Amino acid sequence: MDVTAIQNPKFLKHMSNEQLVQLSEQIRQFLIEKLSKTGGHIGPNLGVVELTIALHKVFDSPKDKLIWDVGHQSYVHKILTGRANQFDTLRQYKGLCGFPKRSESEHDVWETGHSSTSLSAAMGMAIARDLKGTDEYIVPIIGDGALTGGMALEALNHIGHEKKDIIVILNDNEMSIAPNVGALHNVLGRLRTAGKYHWVKDELEMLLKKIPAVGGKLAATAERVKDSIKYLLVSGVFFEELGFTYFGPVDGHHFEDLFETLHYAKKTKGPVLVHVITKKGKGYHPAENDKVGTWHGTGPYKIETGDFIQSKQSAPSWSALVSETVRKLAREDRRIVAITPAMPVGSKLEGFASEFPERMYDVGIAEQHAATMAAGLATQGMKPFLAIYSTFLQRAYDQVVHDICRQNLNVFLGIDRAGLVGADGETHQGVFDIAFLRHIPNIVLMMPKDENEGQHMVYTAIQYDDGPIAMRFPRGNGFGVPMDKQLKNIPIGTWEVLREGTDVSILTFGTTIPMALQAAERLANDGISVQVVNARFIKPLDEQMLHTLLQKNMPLLTIEEAVLQGGFGSAVLEFAHDHGYHGAIIDRMGIPDRFIEHGGVSQLLEEIGLTTEHVMERICLLTPKKRKRA
Amino acid sequence: MDVTAIQNPKFLKHMSNEQLVQLSEQIRQFLIEKLSKTGGHIGPNLGVVELTIALHKVFDSPKDKLIWDVGHQSYVHKILTGRANQFDTLRQYKGLCGFPKRSESEHDVWETGHSSTSLSAAMGMAIARDLKGTDEYIVPIIGDGALTGGMALEALNHIGHEKKDIIVILNDNEMSIAPNVGALHNVLGRLRTAGKYHWVKDELEMLLKKIPAVGGKLAATAERVKDSIKYLLVSGVFFEELGFTYFGPVDGHHFEDLFETLHYAKKTKGPVLVHVITKKGKGYHPAENDKVGTWHGTGPYKIETGDFIQSKQSAPSWSALVSETVRKLAREDRRIVAITPAMPVGSKLEGFASEFPERMYDVGIAEQHAATMAAGLATQGMKPFLAIYSTFLQRAYDQVVHDICRQNLNVFLGIDRAGLVGADGETHQGVFDIAFLRHIPNIVLMMPKDENEGQHMVYTAIQYDDGPIAMRFPRGNGFGVPMDKQLKNIPIGTWEVLREGTDVSILTFGTTIPMALQAAERLANDGISVQVVNARFIKPLDEQMLHTLLQKNMPLLTIEEAVLQGGFGSAVLEFAHDHGYHGAIIDRMGIPDRFIEHGGVSQLLEEIGLTTEHVMERICLLTPKKRKRA
Repeated sequence: MDVTAIQNPKFLKHMSNEQLVQLSEQIRQFLIEKLSKTGGHIGPNLGVVELTIALHKVFDSPKDKLIWDVGHQSYVHKILTGRANQFDTLRQYKGLCGFPKRSESEHDVWETGHSSTSLSAAMGMAIARDLKGTDEYIVPIIGDGALTGGMALEALNHIGHEKKDIIVILNDNEMSIAPNVGALHNVLGRLRTAGKYHWVKDELEMLLKKIPAVGGKLAATAERVKDSIKYLLVSGVFFEELGFTYFGPVDGHHFEDLFETLHYAKKTKGPVLVHVITKKGKGYHPAENDKVGTWHGTGPYKIETGDFIQSKQSAPSWSALVSETVRKLAREDRRIVAITPAMPVGSKLEGFASEFPERMYDVGIAEQHAATMAAGLATQGMKPFLAIYSTFLQRAYDQVVHDICRQNLNVFLGIDRAGLVGADGETHQGVFDIAFLRHIPNIVLMMPKDENEGQHMVYTAIQYDDGPIAMRFPRGNGFGVPMDKQLKNIPIGTWEVLREGTDVSILTFGTTIPMALQAAERLANDGISVQVVNARFIKPLDEQMLHTLLQKNMPLLTIEEAVLQGGFGSAVLEFAHDHGYHGAIIDRMGIPDRFIEHGGVSQLLEEIGLTTEHVMERICLLTPKKRKRA
Repeated sequence: MDVTAIQNPKFLKHMSNEQLVQLSEQIRQFLIEKLSKTGGHIGPNLGVVELTIALHKVFDSPKDKLIWDVGHQSYVHKILTGRANQFDTLRQYKGLCGFPKRSESEHDVWETGHSSTSLSAAMGMAIARDLKGTDEYIVPIIGDGALTGGMALEALNHIGHEKKDIIVILNDNEMSIAPNVGALHNVLGRLRTAGKYHWVKDELEMLLKKIPAVGGKLAATAERVKDSIKYLLVSGVFFEELGFTYFGPVDGHHFEDLFETLHYAKKTKGPVLVHVITKKGKGYHPAENDKVGTWHGTGPYKIETGDFIQSKQSAPSWSALVSETVRKLAREDRRIVAITPAMPVGSKLEGFASEFPERMYDVGIAEQHAATMAAGLATQGMKPFLAIYSTFLQRAYDQVVHDICRQNLNVFLGIDRAGLVGADGETHQGVFDIAFLRHIPNIVLMMPKDENEGQHMVYTAIQYDDGPIAMRFPRGNGFGVPMDKQLKNIPIGTWEVLREGTDVSILTFGTTIPMALQAAERLANDGISVQVVNARFIKPLDEQMLHTLLQKNMPLLTIEEAVLQGGFGSAVLEFAHDHGYHGAIIDRMGIPDRFIEHGGVSQLLEEIGLTTEHVMERICLLTPKKRKRA
């Protein structure tokens, strides 16, 4: 069948298992082909083709609620709910979102991007259902990686206690993004090899009959032995202990098994956990054989070879620059320990890990633990480097406040993917970090203008021993600037004048420096003299330079690829007014007060008005007398 | 012995068990007497007297690291480490901190206040130890309530996986602050009643001998039966599954049992969990019989009767006002569901819970789950009321951003204990919420001037159906103002002029309104005319009123009991400059960029310069020509 003709999942009800197998093949081919052009989360989606079909056949979406944890594995769901014909625009500006989106379809009942939220959402929906007296099934689908996120464990604990009817589908593919870590992962591993419930049960009953009857004190023990059989009968004792009825493990690529188990699950009262084993990348050889997570999310690729079609990048990625600089420093500095919450590949820590395996900790999806563990290390004189994406650092806000900054500990936060990230969209934009970090006492926050300054900042952060220090840096690659051989310390709180000028001063940092320089260059032709300052320290500010500029009555324009509320520009406003420069002309550019959807970064910057042209316009408004243009 | 003479815990090494029992009694009497005057966390500390003594006898602090989770149960530890003579100043300004404090003693190796951080800290310290090649014991002491916090579960998962030598003391008193909830709590309950390891083992071996030998396919099953004996032998299968060696349960008030088990634990490689059963309030009748958590933390009390010595309060507490108003509305509005993360008593939700038990969810210490569960409820048309302390909402920052605000869901956040909280000190001050919420798109944030406006705001929040809405309110009691019978809607984003004036306008809200009014009153005598505006909406601002004030060139003074960076005053600065009022004179008062320690709220306000006198001074600076005073 033509998958682009699918309107909704009702047609599945009448299909035979053979037809479903065929459909799976068609969906796989569709995904492999479409994603070879657009890129996207190919591995996770190939892994859940049969599972998604089975769920839509057994349950009645949208009445029944399918809640996709993390959400990047919802492509098959999107195809089955009538969105196949939009896949050419996947993750593109104004195109199909790479995650569930309530405005796209009534079948998307919950939006995600960050992991581990589905169980809490399910609990909320189950409470609502029971209060309203309706009877829909609530079906969160969560990966084994996401399950180790603290909030998922909080929810498991609560659901198991309250005994609500919720059918948790544990999609166990033995890796989330990178291979999973954690004791719970080991629990799952034991379950995977434990064999099947039904088979064991018969044999066990035979065996039990051979245990002689006992009386007296021994009777109690015998009772316990029988209790302990629970451990055997129900391999999922871990989940049973938490109050769940455990079904599994089930082959997630086998329709009969899936249907049988899901039908059992529907009939079971109280919380159920269905343990489904899937294979990431199933059906596409390069993705299926991926051991480290390369095929988790990709750009375009050649279908035949699995080679990625990459635009030539001469410069290394920011992640690599930072992690490799830390690695270099770690050779001399034995205090350095690297920590990542499940992003060893994304954070380019493979080199560090292979050189210093005992000083590298991938803690799994556990940002809170990662941050506080870093604090614990710092109390013992170590120098932890926490490599974390801006958007995921949101999960550890309290740990940064309460454990790291309040105790003023020497933790180096390497904040990756700061600013707009593009195709992953609104759940992943790294635009809040300045606003949620700047108000925390004791922290130093900086952003480099290029990768050469970036390496010096890493050095500065490692040398700094007066408390927490954070360096934010963007997604993607550097400029390919020449790199100094000798690393040097950048004095904390010092800015740098990149271009002299007398009419307006632009204060900016990181990714927005090029547009500032370009605007200054172009306006020079119109007789407007624009200073450009690399305001590389967002906290503390360069107070001396600010005093100088404000005393000169120089109009200031701040530019940041971050939310305007409470951001860097606000810090400049605060400084000016706190020091009595009430007449100061200060204008701010940045990200407005709304969530920014997916799209190319340059498209998004255009949309929100962060381009060279917009900068020029704003400068003209600040220098009306000098304005020559219309 | 005189406990105030204790210098350090070394003296314990030579004491007999009888002497330790005597010492326990002396420490109990000391605590009961001292806390009857100062107040404090009496229940938790009476529960850990023997446990703390045993830990200091078996381990060598500060070489060995005792890490107190939450920290409010560290009083006995403080006594044993030479701080008994400071207990008259407990939780008072510049006095002994109610939580571990690294600056107080080398024995305080980790600072806390928020729960569930100890395991992550321990993991960090264990990694540091192993890299440095030292051999100290790492001993986190965590309550059963704190164990359900997501980050503690993340850490358990990681510790179990990495097999680090860490001795986790699970202090199981069957309640954290309120009685505990959650499936894990049920697991612990089963363990508590499961009897002792050694006793069962002997009997079991007898029984096993009676199982006949089997061969062939059955052999595999028999092997599994023997595996399953682990479930029986080691009652703590839940923890064993996670990779811990489980010891327990141990009577936490019995020295011999404690010593025996702790010695076993010291000899065991890898992570160990010692399950200690204690009784909160042990040894003081009123506290020991507490069923709901009244004796968790108290003010002064009469020792003989257990009656609390309270200053007369005619007005109800803010918590009661909010929760009772929600309760009243819930009678008509069936969408309302109340959620608390382990604070049903503190949030005064008992009345709501007894009237609407099926619409009240105490999720335990699980702020992240609480927030996202609220979001899940809202997707189904319900109106969740999340009652949460400002400082604990920090734990759910990402959930507020990613789940509630990004999906623009109708969740009502009741932010309790906003502003300075006093004796609990720097870990508990609710001073960051404005800065960490204001930059999130879609949220409405407000604070009432008194409890009458408070009840109208609760009504407004419940009626509001355009997204998330938050009301912050302070710790403590209202003013006792007359209460309107009829609840009414307050238009979103509207401020209110409380006093007319022409020279300066004070924009403030909540707790700082009285000092503004008083300053205005007093300055009127000096001929300075001060307007006072109740800026009850922190987001959105009253733009119309701001335009009017800025067009008049009225100097503005903003006052907030919250951090200045990115706060309300910054919002006013942003508004002024975004709208081209570059000459505006705007001055801001609030909490400076450092953590504020414990003390009386009025002492703290004096220290940071938030008093009527300071307000008067600032106004005089803003109106130099009118200034009559020196």
